[in-house]
Amino acid sequence: MAKKNAAAGKMVYYFGKTKTDGDASMKMLIGGKGANLADMTSIGLPVPAGFTITTECCGAYNKAGGKFPKGMMDEVHAAVKTLEKESGKKFGDSQDPLLVSVRSGAAVSMPGMMNTILNLGLNDESVAGLANATGNERFAYDAYRRLINMYGDVVMEVHHEYFEEAFNKIKAKYGAKDDNDVPTKGLIELVAAYKQVYKKYTKNDFPQDPIEQLALAIEAVFKSWNADKAISYRRIEGITGLAGTAVNVQSMVFGNMGDDSGTGVAFTRNPSNGDNKFYGEFLVNAQGEDVVAGIRTPQPVAEMPKWTCEADKTIGKKVHDELMKIKDKLEKHYKDVQDIEFTIERGKLYMLQTRTGKRTGMAAVKIACDMVKEKLIDEKKAVMRIPAGDLTQLLLPSFDPAAKKKASPLTIGLPASPGAAFGKLAFTAEEAVERAHNGEQVLLVRKETSPEDVDGMHSAAGILTSTGGMTSHAAVVARGWGKCCVAGAGAIQIDEKAKKITVGGKSYGVKDVLSIDGTTGEVFAGEMPTVSPKLSGDFSTVMGWADKHRKLGVRTNADSPADAKRAREFGAEGIGLCRTEHMFFEGDRILAMREMILAETKSAREAALKKLLPYQRKDFEGIFKAMAGLPVTVRLLDPPLHEFVPHDAKSQQDLSKAIGVPAKDIAARVAQLHEANPMLGHRGCRLSITYPEILVMQVTAITEAAILCKSKKIDAKAEIMIPLVGTVKELSILRRLTEETIASVIAAKKYTGKLDILIGTMIEIPRAALTADEIAAEADFFSFGTNDLTQMTFGYSRDDVNTFLPDYLYHEILPKDPFQSIDASGVGQLVEMAVAKGKTVNKGIKLGICGEHGGDPASIKFCHAVGLNYVSCSPFRVPIARLAAAQAALMAK
Amino acid sequence: MAKKNAAAGKMVYYFGKTKTDGDASMKMLIGGKGANLADMTSIGLPVPAGFTITTECCGAYNKAGGKFPKGMMDEVHAAVKTLEKESGKKFGDSQDPLLVSVRSGAAVSMPGMMNTILNLGLNDESVAGLANATGNERFAYDAYRRLINMYGDVVMEVHHEYFEEAFNKIKAKYGAKDDNDVPTKGLIELVAAYKQVYKKYTKNDFPQDPIEQLALAIEAVFKSWNADKAISYRRIEGITGLAGTAVNVQSMVFGNMGDDSGTGVAFTRNPSNGDNKFYGEFLVNAQGEDVVAGIRTPQPVAEMPKWTCEADKTIGKKVHDELMKIKDKLEKHYKDVQDIEFTIERGKLYMLQTRTGKRTGMAAVKIACDMVKEKLIDEKKAVMRIPAGDLTQLLLPSFDPAAKKKASPLTIGLPASPGAAFGKLAFTAEEAVERAHNGEQVLLVRKETSPEDVDGMHSAAGILTSTGGMTSHAAVVARGWGKCCVAGAGAIQIDEKAKKITVGGKSYGVKDVLSIDGTTGEVFAGEMPTVSPKLSGDFSTVMGWADKHRKLGVRTNADSPADAKRAREFGAEGIGLCRTEHMFFEGDRILAMREMILAETKSAREAALKKLLPYQRKDFEGIFKAMAGLPVTVRLLDPPLHEFVPHDAKSQQDLSKAIGVPAKDIAARVAQLHEANPMLGHRGCRLSITYPEILVMQVTAITEAAILCKSKKIDAKAEIMIPLVGTVKELSILRRLTEETIASVIAAKKYTGKLDILIGTMIEIPRAALTADEIAAEADFFSFGTNDLTQMTFGYSRDDVNTFLPDYLYHEILPKDPFQSIDASGVGQLVEMAVAKGKTVNKGIKLGICGEHGGDPASIKFCHAVGLNYVSCSPFRVPIARLAAAQAALMAK
Repeated sequence: MAKKNAAAGKMVYYFGKTKTDGDASMKMLIGGKGANLADMTSIGLPVPAGFTITTECCGAYNKAGGKFPKGMMDEVHAAVKTLEKESGKKFGDSQDPLLVSVRSGAAVSMPGMMNTILNLGLNDESVAGLANATGNERFAYDAYRRLINMYGDVVMEVHHEYFEEAFNKIKAKYGAKDDNDVPTKGLIELVAAYKQVYKKYTKNDFPQDPIEQLALAIEAVFKSWNADKAISYRRIEGITGLAGTAVNVQSMVFGNMGDDSGTGVAFTRNPSNGDNKFYGEFLVNAQGEDVVAGIRTPQPVAEMPKWTCEADKTIGKKVHDELMKIKDKLEKHYKDVQDIEFTIERGKLYMLQTRTGKRTGMAAVKIACDMVKEKLIDEKKAVMRIPAGDLTQLLLPSFDPAAKKKASPLTIGLPASPGAAFGKLAFTAEEAVERAHNGEQVLLVRKETSPEDVDGMHSAAGILTSTGGMTSHAAVVARGWGKCCVAGAGAIQIDEKAKKITVGGKSYGVKDVLSIDGTTGEVFAGEMPTVSPKLSGDFSTVMGWADKHRKLGVRTNADSPADAKRAREFGAEGIGLCRTEHMFFEGDRILAMREMILAETKSAREAALKKLLPYQRKDFEGIFKAMAGLPVTVRLLDPPLHEFVPHDAKSQQDLSKAIGVPAKDIAARVAQLHEANPMLGHRGCRLSITYPEILVMQVTAITEAAILCKSKKIDAKAEIMIPLVGTVKELSILRRLTEETIASVIAAKKYTGKLDILIGTMIEIPRAALTADEIAAEADFFSFGTNDLTQMTFGYSRDDVNTFLPDYLYHEILPKDPFQSIDASGVGQLVEMAVAKGKTVNKGIKLGICGEHGGDPASIKFCHAVGLNYVSCSPFRVPIARLAAAQAALMAK
Repeated sequence: MAKKNAAAGKMVYYFGKTKTDGDASMKMLIGGKGANLADMTSIGLPVPAGFTITTECCGAYNKAGGKFPKGMMDEVHAAVKTLEKESGKKFGDSQDPLLVSVRSGAAVSMPGMMNTILNLGLNDESVAGLANATGNERFAYDAYRRLINMYGDVVMEVHHEYFEEAFNKIKAKYGAKDDNDVPTKGLIELVAAYKQVYKKYTKNDFPQDPIEQLALAIEAVFKSWNADKAISYRRIEGITGLAGTAVNVQSMVFGNMGDDSGTGVAFTRNPSNGDNKFYGEFLVNAQGEDVVAGIRTPQPVAEMPKWTCEADKTIGKKVHDELMKIKDKLEKHYKDVQDIEFTIERGKLYMLQTRTGKRTGMAAVKIACDMVKEKLIDEKKAVMRIPAGDLTQLLLPSFDPAAKKKASPLTIGLPASPGAAFGKLAFTAEEAVERAHNGEQVLLVRKETSPEDVDGMHSAAGILTSTGGMTSHAAVVARGWGKCCVAGAGAIQIDEKAKKITVGGKSYGVKDVLSIDGTTGEVFAGEMPTVSPKLSGDFSTVMGWADKHRKLGVRTNADSPADAKRAREFGAEGIGLCRTEHMFFEGDRILAMREMILAETKSAREAALKKLLPYQRKDFEGIFKAMAGLPVTVRLLDPPLHEFVPHDAKSQQDLSKAIGVPAKDIAARVAQLHEANPMLGHRGCRLSITYPEILVMQVTAITEAAILCKSKKIDAKAEIMIPLVGTVKELSILRRLTEETIASVIAAKKYTGKLDILIGTMIEIPRAALTADEIAAEADFFSFGTNDLTQMTFGYSRDDVNTFLPDYLYHEILPKDPFQSIDASGVGQLVEMAVAKGKTVNKGIKLGICGEHGGDPASIKFCHAVGLNYVSCSPFRVPIARLAAAQAALMAK
């Protein structure tokens, strides 16, 4: 429950010893980080005091075109006063100045997306105060130069390079190899140099008033909400409906005050595999961004007890013990894995942040099961907690162990995000996007990644970095997506300009393929074969819970016995879409198919179809067998005939020789079959209307196969699906023909047993949805073909949509790619309408979905809500669908 | 009001002196012909007695798979008994037998579509009776042989040729040139020969029992309802919802009993130009079908008074006087032009049929106006009576008189259906369909047409026949459609096999063009230039009445000042759709357009657009001027850019030289612009999202043109229409940009006057209709683009639909071509939904339609019903739309 003053327009929320205004429930208002800082403070964790400016202020600021809401800065001033009072330090003080950090923090975590300012409050006067208070002049000037640099870069958009140049000059002057080799004198000169850089590029002096610094920093955070990279991240993650980011202003603590200081990040459990082991990294004498940015490679937290320093030989053990206690307290409090940031300042531990820990699918399953066992959560919460889409990670192939045994890795990096991937090398995000768009499978290879790279990372099959650790940008983002990533493979030298990498004396460029194993960190040359994953007992447990709660059936889209078998192993309860077109391409079949297409008379067509019949019958027999006892929905021939004929002169001549039709006749027929818009052309049931003999052949094959199975005691449950129906008459004519064909096969085979073949249709044309009440009278079932329905409802050709869809997502014209996740307000409206209309006429009509949306969790939620009976998806997405269906059912309760 | 017994399931309706069961209101039940026979009998006209079997019996017969409904034949027997009693003749009697005709007659007239049997009741015995009663053995056997021939052909499907062969043998035997030269003996032999033909091909003897003959004949009529040609006619005419045809059984009267007998057909007014003059043709000593079939060329009825015969020198005058009286009686009774059939048997006149006379559009206008003057009907009835679509005939071009003066006709036929047409010659219906489908303009040239030819007649630009009169099949059907037709051009010799005609010693084949003038009957070689029609005062009168009653506004689709001016003359109240794409093809414009498309940067694109701006501004200025004071809706660029670039290597090289872009870059860009389904691709507002600078140029041109006009006191009323919107965000983004552009033009021009430019969108994507409530918040108007909306709602590509649409119409899967007449249940549902949703959010939103449906009367009726504000159509259809809108408003009252 939000406190009362939230409603009263309070803009600043304090947390500290004096008072704590916020609480964990106020994420929307004060952001995830702010709410947790308040929450942690409330439960007694050592959190540096500070205050949070609300997300509403950010919204109001951006809405007003860049003006702070009235009264906000007054509240900020008051909070600063409280902070000064509590800490006994003063902003800009020449003896012991108050320094603060300014960080963003939206309601949803967006790692690395928002700008951060540290050491704010330093100026020419207070830098001396800091030196005085810490007794460390070097540290004070180092902090000051960091502030000017960060402030210049983030707030004033002065390019980092200009500061870097100035630093390099100083380093050269003092012969320093490393930043740390620069003497205090050099740092004092550096501050002066940085101030010049600042003035040169901003035309202003570096602001000396800490309150002015603070106001500008707050503004920078507000502005960063609408930075391209932030918009891009929200788009990819599908984050909408937020007002903006909150701003957290917090007393600085320093991990870089010497060997008795340090900083780190950790997960309360292993986010990669879910093991219940504290899992993190720390760096002695460093500030937080040094860990995240991957500039120095940190130590595992497990090593912390070994940390000693001159002042305290047991410092490591003490801090580690305290961290362990805090870890337990956090998990008990939040009942979930936490992702924390901490800093040790001169031996004292401070908690800077806690948030729900992102985890891989594998970890999510294990953690959920473990926490049920630990009685932290119940079954339903466990089911709700696993992001259904992340299950793909458990189901993704890994490299074939046999092949791996033979191969030796080029190098081994950090296993940053599990899975196996290979691809040709892409060296920039733009290149990865471009080449992936053109159908190439690429690996994105970068020294380190930054938020600017998210589009490219999303497009790549996998990500390989040469610096940075397990919590580097690349690692965190890749894990969130379940995308394979090997990070910090330091042996690899990357030459971005020349577009090549060098490792072990060999070079690889844009045309070379590497394989990366995100579970082990290995990097291999060439393409390595992959194998299917083995599923853990925890996975079965979760699936069992899901099946207990879901209402939706889950079928699969499968065209072969092998696919059908795999899907059944994954828990598919039938086939929702068995496409028949793929069956016509193998071996001699395509010849017979082409003969049929080139036939000029019905009887010639029938002769060619007769050759295809035995193949089709065998296909169906195999599938019915694999799915014995479960329904199999067979879709009759759907694509335009043009897809089956050869288009170049050479292939046409080959075909001419093979079937004895003159090549010029073939060319003429192929030209005749060409359509301006084949998507909207002569296909689907339109083919069966003009060439009923094709339907007759297919239905004959289905019926004969079903009878053959039955005679072998295999329970074949065929359902015949007529595609692309737009008017009830199409369906009634073809239903009649289907029924007659079934009856005549039964008569010819003298079959006397039961053979209830359902006859239904796809609803994939807007008009079919609009007139579903008419169509339902002739259909035993509706299966929503939401791929085509999306194409026609939006007027988007899926083959062409990439000419403008990226722009549409970028400008947030569409919240999501409607081919990935169903467009509830448009396409969904038609689905709902069809369900309602269909049921008025045919109460018992079976309703399913067989578009690719059937495997998308958000779409599955929609399917549950509108009352479908089942979803059908690709075999690998069946477990996802089972889990998402359970979540939909539980959410609806 | 239908009589009570109709509800009681009465199946046979008698008409005659004894009783008359039916009346004029019962068309649905006893067909148009049956109702009128009953009606004519009731008002005392000389109608041969008979009875009508209901359309419901036909429906029941066909539904039951070919079984008469129970009890029907009992009612038929009873009616025959009454008929025998009334006439004093008996079926099959050897002294004075009762003979009857059996004719079809549905609720809606379908000329020539249904089979007819005459002389039924003749057998080996009664033929002698007929000879006895008439004292004319030759006539009796001639009647008998006609019966066997017609019966064999129509009822038993024995090919007419077999009878023809037998007749030719007899003719040869007796050296007869003509049928009439065969002596009685020959006819007796012919009957025997015909009976053998009948037996050979039917395996049965010719039935001797008149009741059996009658039953089989009724069946044949019932069956003919579902003959291909009947289905085809109903499809073309858009006739649906009928149960079947009625069967009229009527006592025979004979026009072929000698020189004191005859037969004819007539219209109570001239159906071609509407003149209030009795208008018809007759033949002495002939049966009705001789007139209709065009085998002998008849005399005008006006010549009838000159008809004399041995028995009665004044027979012609007497009959003519009686006909005139009947004509007046009929018009007074029906208050409309009647199309009648009559027969004179030995001096006595009988009326065989009356029905509403089909007429040309020109005649319909004149007759309606005349009848209002004559106080036969009122204004509203006059408006309702003119088929709106037929007005095209008044608006069609005729041949340029100057050109005609110079040309001399090859020959002059009958002016069967007005208008002017030219085309290459097609010799069969199939050929006409095929070549018209392939884009050729053809004239169908036939000796005479038959119902089998209707598809070909429909496809042809005009029809030319060498035999047959003004009421021949070709003439009647062509007039009904308003298609130009010259009939009975006897000088033309047609060689169907060699595909050529010969006239005046010259030959013309499939590649030659002829021009025909349907208003004069002239036939010319070559293509003759045409001129626009002049409109009569009656036309203005009718338009005035229509404007008084209509609620819908009527705008036009026009892209040029010339079109706009013409449409305004036709009464357009604004432009509903001004397409801008055509404007980019002329002269230098296309170069600049191509430069823009090939530009690689925004600034290069803007530079090219800058060149286009003055052209566009001038275009709009001209159109605003032509439409001063009336709204002009300009649609922003809509088609994919691919349509503007050259596709072959040669043109690409030319372009390369002209604009200095390497040809290979041009080829690459052209390839890149290629789309799999351009209909659903990168076009419409999607172009403006990715290339906003195009919109900016167009809006700038519109705004500048409007300001220029205003400064010249021309009241420009611009409306900007954003096409292909599918989501509200597209519209809100582009609306903002449009508003900003308008504002900046106003500022730049320092314009201070009023300039209310409306901004709206087309609703042409299903999703736009589904989310019209969202979209309406950003739109000042909706214009329904029902062409694209039909494409996407049905999933039909208009460019490809001919691969299956003919089959769909043939099988009645679709009642009409949905691109010609709006599909009310699917596409219309979306329109209704969008109207309702749009109004909930934006009460005052303007609603129009600019698809081609805007000029289709049935669709206009729909637009009125759903509450649109206006329709927009091509200039020539504006009067049609005005009339149809009035009819819709009057019908709704």
